[in-house]
Amino acid sequence: MKLATQSTTRERLLEAARDLFLKQGYAATGIAQILKTAEAKPGSLYHFFPTKEDLLIEALESYKELLWPVVIQPVFDQVTDPIERIFGVLDGYRQMLGLTDCTKGCPIGNIALELADSHPRIRKLCAENFDGWCDAIRGCLDDAQNRLPETVDRAELASFVLTVMEGAVMQVRAYRSFEPFDVAVNQLRDYFNRLLDDATGVSPRAARSRIDRNVSRE
Amino acid sequence: MKLATQSTTRERLLEAARDLFLKQGYAATGIAQILKTAEAKPGSLYHFFPTKEDLLIEALESYKELLWPVVIQPVFDQVTDPIERIFGVLDGYRQMLGLTDCTKGCPIGNIALELADSHPRIRKLCAENFDGWCDAIRGCLDDAQNRLPETVDRAELASFVLTVMEGAVMQVRAYRSFEPFDVAVNQLRDYFNRLLDDATGVSPRAARSRIDRNVSRE
Repeated sequence: MKLATQSTTRERLLEAARDLFLKQGYAATGIAQILKTAEAKPGSLYHFFPTKEDLLIEALESYKELLWPVVIQPVFDQVTDPIERIFGVLDGYRQMLGLTDCTKGCPIGNIALELADSHPRIRKLCAENFDGWCDAIRGCLDDAQNRLPETVDRAELASFVLTVMEGAVMQVRAYRSFEPFDVAVNQLRDYFNRLLDDATGVSPRAARSRIDRNVSRE
Repeated sequence: MKLATQSTTRERLLEAARDLFLKQGYAATGIAQILKTAEAKPGSLYHFFPTKEDLLIEALESYKELLWPVVIQPVFDQVTDPIERIFGVLDGYRQMLGLTDCTKGCPIGNIALELADSHPRIRKLCAENFDGWCDAIRGCLDDAQNRLPETVDRAELASFVLTVMEGAVMQVRAYRSFEPFDVAVNQLRDYFNRLLDDATGVSPRAARSRIDRNVSRE
């Protein structure tokens, strides 16, 4: 019984920290606010997480574990086409931004920009989170490899998809509008269509008529 | 003489704040550190900038003014081809990251992710900075419009270039490596080549042989 309570307090602390670091950044989040949100006592915090950085490290470790069950698998359960799975993952970020009124965005990207220079261990954990994300996208590209030109480097293309996602989420937050996200996804879709058409020998004109149909959503 | 000194103190404060906000973020930068770096007294700071936010607002206003003389014009002076100007601007960010050992990155992107949700006026200024950047890229695309497919929306493509730049710079900082930046630029180059070839009727195969030549720089 004692163990169960301890585990719950730890989870509450971790959840509160994850949410506050994401919403307002690491430096702007104080220990007192984490304790208040988690309804926990200072003693329990220092027992589980001796420093604020320990809490962030654990949060970033947990994001690595949450990638598949929270970000990837729900999309894969709905979509079977490997290329559409990539765009489904991107759409998941759009939905999350929608639920939070264009705030929050990608927790890893936020933390990476805030702390990469000053906290080497945090930087490494951000990179590991990015690696996991790229591996999932790379898996989709591997499944679709017969539909892509032979010259496509699938690891590089997966990294590019991450680049587009992170850059798009950043602009959504700056503009507080979905438009830059939809524009970026539409351009990426055009690029993919051109790659797919190149592999199957379809002319660029076919891709062109297709991008006209991919109108931005409001 | 008094005016000149005041202006110098103001400039020193602004430069110190700009540098510290960029290096370590807004929340992590204290007033005392700004004063120490600028070698200024508290009275002069509060005279020019009553709050820390005023200092950031002025810094973001100054970034808008610095865009052309610092980021755009030096590239345009060296490069005349409008498409190459776009890649020249991107290369400028790579050079800046090189000078700072993959730290710093894009000041606007950092601030946007840290403060967009909590500081509406800051969010708006970040968006205005992004607008200015996109306008410069859009101008290049307008100059190259005869070489692009008619269906290309040049404002959207300019926004996509910003997306790629911001997403790439973020990954450079997380990985402390140029590789994700070079990969992203190489993919963007492939996309541009496919657009250019589509407009001129060149087959995708020509673009394909070209991407082989755009090998990543170490």
